[in-house]
This record gives sequence, C-alpha cells and structure tokens, in this order.
Amino acid sequence: MTKPIKLSDKTSYDSFLDKFDTFLIDCDGVIWHHNTLIPEVREVLELFRKNGKRLIFVTNNSTKSRSSYLAKFQKLNIEANRDEIFCSSYAAAYYLKNVVKFPSDKKVYVIGESGITEELSIEGIQYCGSDEDNQVYTNGNEFNFSKINPDSEVGAVLCGFDTHLNYKKLAKAFTYLYSNPDCIFILTNEDTTFPSNGTIYPGTGSLVAPLIRSLNRNPDVTIGKPNKPMLDCMVQKLHLDVERTCMIGDRLNTDIQFGINGGTKTLLVLTGVSTEQEILVKDASIVPDYYISSLGNFSELLNNSIN
Amino acid sequence: MTKPIKLSDKTSYDSFLDKFDTFLIDCDGVIWHHNTLIPEVREVLELFRKNGKRLIFVTNNSTKSRSSYLAKFQKLNIEANRDEIFCSSYAAAYYLKNVVKFPSDKKVYVIGESGITEELSIEGIQYCGSDEDNQVYTNGNEFNFSKINPDSEVGAVLCGFDTHLNYKKLAKAFTYLYSNPDCIFILTNEDTTFPSNGTIYPGTGSLVAPLIRSLNRNPDVTIGKPNKPMLDCMVQKLHLDVERTCMIGDRLNTDIQFGINGGTKTLLVLTGVSTEQEILVKDASIVPDYYISSLGNFSELLNNSIN
Repeated sequence: MTKPIKLSDKTSYDSFLDKFDTFLIDCDGVIWHHNTLIPEVREVLELFRKNGKRLIFVTNNSTKSRSSYLAKFQKLNIEANRDEIFCSSYAAAYYLKNVVKFPSDKKVYVIGESGITEELSIEGIQYCGSDEDNQVYTNGNEFNFSKINPDSEVGAVLCGFDTHLNYKKLAKAFTYLYSNPDCIFILTNEDTTFPSNGTIYPGTGSLVAPLIRSLNRNPDVTIGKPNKPMLDCMVQKLHLDVERTCMIGDRLNTDIQFGINGGTKTLLVLTGVSTEQEILVKDASIVPDYYISSLGNFSELLNNSIN
Repeated sequence: MTKPIKLSDKTSYDSFLDKFDTFLIDCDGVIWHHNTLIPEVREVLELFRKNGKRLIFVTNNSTKSRSSYLAKFQKLNIEANRDEIFCSSYAAAYYLKNVVKFPSDKKVYVIGESGITEELSIEGIQYCGSDEDNQVYTNGNEFNFSKINPDSEVGAVLCGFDTHLNYKKLAKAFTYLYSNPDCIFILTNEDTTFPSNGTIYPGTGSLVAPLIRSLNRNPDVTIGKPNKPMLDCMVQKLHLDVERTCMIGDRLNTDIQFGINGGTKTLLVLTGVSTEQEILVKDASIVPDYYISSLGNFSELLNNSIN
C-alpha cells in the first residue's frame, strides 16, 4: 500500500490545494470539538473559499437537519450555507426522494429525531413515527401488543439516532418490515457509539441491532460514512468530479474509508480519533492519501503569496 | 447420529416412563398454547405424579415470577407448586445468589419486568432500574445525558424482556458495563423473538443487541434454554440425577438443545414449533432421544394397568 504523504510545509500545502476543486469536510474532530473551534480552522476555511474551493460539510449525525447545523456554524462564526451541509438526515431524505423515488402515497416510519422529520418534510415525503411514538401503549400495566399492526401504507422504515427509542418503536418497525417484504429498511449511519457528555453512549448502529437480529435481516441501505450512498447523493446533486475532490476527516474507519469507497482522495487530520501511528504501521488497513496535524496548519499559507 | 425413538404405543410409553424420575417440561407448545390447554395434558401430568415422577416446569419467559406462573397453572387447573417452576427470571436470581454469590452491598441494574424484580427481592438481592427507568430524562426537549453516570454500586446488569425498554435504560446499562470491567453482564434468555398477539415481536435476545454491539462484548452468561446455567441451577437446587431426567419440549434449538447441553435425555413433542421432518432428515443437526405427537398421548396409559 502506498505510504501517505505528510503535509508539513507551505510547498506541500500549495501543491495539495492545487489538486482539488472540492473539499468534503467532516465536522467534529476536524473543525470543532463539540462546541469549541479548533485553532485557525475558521481562517483556513475562509482561505479555501478565497482560493475558489467548494466546501461541503459532511456529518453522520442524523439528529440535526441542515438548518440546525447551519445555526451551529453561525454560532461559531463560520461561513456556510444550507446547501453546503450534508448530514445523514438530509442525505437519507435526498436518497429516498431521488434514488428510491419513494412513492408519494406511501409513508416512511421514522425511528429518529427532528433532523430526519424536518428533512423528509422539505423533500415532501410523508412520514409517521418519531415523536408521536415517544409514549408507550399500555393496557392497564401491560404493553398493548394488539395496537401494533401491519400498515401497507408504510413503504420504508428509516432508523437514525433517537434518544426516545422505546420498545413500541422497535415493535412497530419490526412489524412493518416483517409483514411486508417490499418495505425498505434504511439506516442513516452505522456508528455503534454516540459521543456526548465527554464519553460515549450507544449509537445508531447499535440501536438498530434489535431489528437486524429479530428480522435476521440487514438494512437494505446505510446512508452515512463510510458507506457510499451519501457520496452518491453528493455526486448526483452537486455534480462532483471525484478526481478533483478530497475527503477530509479525523477517523480512518468512517471518513477516510468513505473517501476511498467513493473514489475521492483523502486527507486525515490528527485532531480527532485516529493517530499517525495507525496509518504508518506496516499492516495498516486504511491509509489516507495525505495527512496533516491539523486543518488549522494550512493557515501558514495566509501570509504567503497564494492570495 | 442415532435416530430418535418414536413413542406411539402403550409399550413404548411404559418403557419410556420406567427410565426417568424427573421430567423437565417446557410450557408453551407442550402443555398449553397461550391460554388453551393441549388436550389430555392435564391428565397426563397427573398420571406422571401418580407414578412418582418429579415435574419441573421450565420456561425462558422472564416477565413473570414463579408466583405469577403458579397463578396461570391454577387458572388452567393444573397441579403445580412454586418450587416446581423454573422461569428464567427466577433462575437468574438463583444464579446471582448461589453461583455468582452476588455481594449484598452491590446492586443489580435490571432491564426487565416485574418477574425479575420480584425474584431478586425474594433472594434478597438489591436492584435498581426496571420500572423506575420507564420515564425518559429530558432537559427541555433534549435527552439529559448528564444524568447517565457510572455507579460503582452496580455490580451486575441483568437483561430480560422489557416492553418498557427505552434509550435511557440502554444508556445506563451501557455506562455501568463500560465504566466498570468487573460489572457482570447477564441475559435471562437469548430468544430473538417474543410470541404475542398471534404473531412475533422483538425478543430479549434482540433487545440486548444494542449493548452487545456498542460494548463490543457478549453477555458473560445467558441463563435460559438452550444454555446450561438454568440446568446447572436446577441440578444444584433440586439435586437432579441428569441420567434419570428427561427434558420435554417442542423446540429443537431451545428445549432439546438445552437437554443435550445439560446431559439429560430429551423428548420432542410435535404440538409446537419443531416438526417430525426436521428430526428425520439425514443432516438433522439437533435430534432428540424420543419424540411423540403430543404429551397428551400418554393418556392412553390411563386405562392401563400402570396404576
């Protein structure tokens, strides 16, 4: 396997920038840590824009819509617009609308939060579930199984991260998929853990496991990184030239694998999860094309003649 | 593999009965279907008792305690006493008390229903979770992750079937296991589906999948059929002679495998899930020692000289 190229001086930064028109940029661990900007990244993103680069912000988080993400960018004073944001909630809605051509007379059953339902609404896709199933059916003290029935109008089950996941939602999703072989089973992302509160908790890829195990069936499609559908959606919507596109991220098994799967070039930043050691060991299984200590390092070019 | 012996006449019934002192009997599909007794099974159980056989009723269902099961037996007018019932809720409590020797100053975090908490109380084991976590923490509209914290007093996480499963319970169980490598991870049973309402829904073995996937760790022990711990508990408590014990059930992959794993003899009844064809095919992977159309068939002996 080819060794990754380390970007560590102005010449290498310049040479790297020349190769690309578009940067796909993961957010947490690359641009910010939770609510704290990584030093000089704001300036670097501005520099990229001044040099005519197209920026696309890519995240597996399905709890937020593009509009909610945009609010976070604005709060951190980073320039962005809604169409530059590809979160897995939006990508799932885009995929259903434009790839699946989901019928207008069918509904999507949603396990997930408002990020997903907002994006489905914008795409004009009917849905049920989500918030409306946060409360559990009971019949006295007993769970009311008789209220969980097949529904031929449900044409897809879409699962994302949901802190209001409950047995009722799992039983309904199971029943729609079990009773109707044509019902599509879609997962926003397969991350097994969810970072919050300075630690981790079960993530989307874990929350959907009861359905996979009880149905003995994997999802038909998983939208988010490292899987290809989210990139396919970007290519279709944004007419990306993957040869002139670089995926920038901090995780080998999601971000870098995503770029590799989609045929883009890849840049690993060392401000997040994955380390230099992991990519330099002899039997490294996932290797980026480039790596850099921090995306902020490109700021060295700011006093250069590039402008 | 030896072919199973079909019990189909009085001579074979007599010969079978002579070989055993104790019958371990699965309930649903053997004695009853939901709330309907299988014909003549009540009379057969009485016949077994008159012939000095010890009867133990064995079920993977963890939602009921032995007392709740006893009420069902009484409702169906079948003789039974509490000490003859081994449900996975009781077996889990027995296992914690007598095999694990669970410390009296530690607590068990329970995902599960009252069957489990009742049996833990009877064994004098402290617990938390279950009903008290049916309501989800919120902070405004947001799930309050800051309330989910390690607790060094939690020495075990015990998971059974729970129609009030929610993200809060999964996040708490995950946190106790993730933060404390000594915390024991116990599953009442691994059935992936739960029969109810004339169909199936996700079962215990599926509901625990988010923990297995997010922790990347299997349970330390699974109590119920086909696993051995429930039989080990019976042997310890009831001083079973496994050579003179026969497990009677309707499912090859749970009941019959349970007997095989535990070293008892096995009898498959054809009034439930598994079929004659499954055990007679050339490459059958699980084969009982004996099979019979219905446990009720033994009633042919009632007009015989056996009494």
